[in-house]
Amino acid sequence: MTVTQQDKDRILEVHKKTSNVIQQGCGPFFASVYDENGNIVAEAGNSVVNDKCPIYHAEVNAIRATCKKLDTYDLAPYNLSLYVNAEPCIMCVGAIMWSGIKHVYYGVPSKRVEEITGFDEGFKPNWHEEFAKRGITVEGDIEVEAGEKVLEEYVNSGREVYKPSR
Amino acid sequence: MTVTQQDKDRILEVHKKTSNVIQQGCGPFFASVYDENGNIVAEAGNSVVNDKCPIYHAEVNAIRATCKKLDTYDLAPYNLSLYVNAEPCIMCVGAIMWSGIKHVYYGVPSKRVEEITGFDEGFKPNWHEEFAKRGITVEGDIEVEAGEKVLEEYVNSGREVYKPSR
Repeated sequence: MTVTQQDKDRILEVHKKTSNVIQQGCGPFFASVYDENGNIVAEAGNSVVNDKCPIYHAEVNAIRATCKKLDTYDLAPYNLSLYVNAEPCIMCVGAIMWSGIKHVYYGVPSKRVEEITGFDEGFKPNWHEEFAKRGITVEGDIEVEAGEKVLEEYVNSGREVYKPSR
Repeated sequence: MTVTQQDKDRILEVHKKTSNVIQQGCGPFFASVYDENGNIVAEAGNSVVNDKCPIYHAEVNAIRATCKKLDTYDLAPYNLSLYVNAEPCIMCVGAIMWSGIKHVYYGVPSKRVEEITGFDEGFKPNWHEEFAKRGITVEGDIEVEAGEKVLEEYVNSGREVYKPSR
């Protein structure tokens, strides 16, 4: 796999949608699921604060919506691609593996997300290789600068960095 | 932390409840969330097949139900304990970390779950240490034999080992 101009455009689009959903109270993350024909099957923002549930990350919400739309727990036969503005956290890495999504493209790497926002992204060493073992392709660090700008706006506007109190 | 007789009894109880929910079409996993006073705040089985969603593992469902009941995304102030019949998969390890649950007790280790059932539990090296860093205690391999028996019954009865086609 290589990153095409179309992939970059889709990531720029999720960066823009991230910025939009922040205005609706979402966390600064957004994910879109595309089919082979370039149609968006489902997409969603992070609704941890709005829905008062720590599990409702953008990737989880997008997968839930996709499974509901296609009426199945196994998305593998559909050859779907997930585009997300930032590298998935450990929970979402698991959720993507169990969903049957075949291709993952992300923007800002976790290290930068943690530095900019203070969110904890967890531990997931060699997850690209682990995905490859399971037939899932991953491409990351796409249009990072545009994505970092949205994360910085989120933090600078004083919005909630929702996480469990430790 | 050490494993008390009460912890063992609670794990035996989740093994029994796992067996019960299998009869309702659930996957062979069950999780209960206890408060400090020994009351169950919420509990749930794995509903991947019933709800057609690959994310609805027992731990995820129990956390969703607990957050709904307590009306918050941050469970940390409640000092809750999660009891589950098997070691959490990588997704659930993440879900537990983000929930604010403080103590985790599990039965059958992932290696045995994978050997008995064929489920993929993912990669989560040193997760006990990673939890410790975040102030979460973990005790595992509790009442393993009773738990393995339930998993074996699930497989031997020809029930679905739901996972994405690869």
